[in-house]
Amino acid sequence: MGDGSERITTVEIYGQSYHVRGLSSPEYIAQLAAFVDERMREVSEFTPTVDTLKVAILAALNIADKYLTARKKLQTVEQLVADRTEKMRASLDSVLHPDSP
Amino acid sequence: MGDGSERITTVEIYGQSYHVRGLSSPEYIAQLAAFVDERMREVSEFTPTVDTLKVAILAALNIADKYLTARKKLQTVEQLVADRTEKMRASLDSVLHPDSP
Repeated sequence: MGDGSERITTVEIYGQSYHVRGLSSPEYIAQLAAFVDERMREVSEFTPTVDTLKVAILAALNIADKYLTARKKLQTVEQLVADRTEKMRASLDSVLHPDSP
Repeated sequence: MGDGSERITTVEIYGQSYHVRGLSSPEYIAQLAAFVDERMREVSEFTPTVDTLKVAILAALNIADKYLTARKKLQTVEQLVADRTEKMRASLDSVLHPDSP
């Protein structure tokens, strides 16, 4: 998502500016910032608190949940691909070489 | 990841206690908390700051990056499953029904 050179992108999250250093494009950093900002606003709706750190931590937990869930699903689908490929290869084999053991 | 009843789990993240309300099991909440804590400690290594909120926000951005990357990969793999299934079905069809158009 970048050209290999580190740069600093300024984003606003939950009403405060942050300078983010990284290899990613400013557009991608802005997308991430909007995503985090959105989760924080969601959290603050359901957790009335003036503690911005608590809101950030709960949002981070929420995003971590999404990540671990997606990662688990990815592993399941990758296993499915491997299993299904093997099964269909076996089906093709049995048609193409019906006398093989 | 839960039995349908909301409960409160207390976790420690970056040296501070948080009460997390949700449907998930205490074990899963603890796993998420450990994950967020780890990301915050990583961030603080590379970003010397005493501002815990900044560390939490940068960790949230980092986790959001992991999530969006995993989600994109999941979409790619799911598309691959659909494409590959269709292709292998066509291969089987051409062997089983060689005269079909």
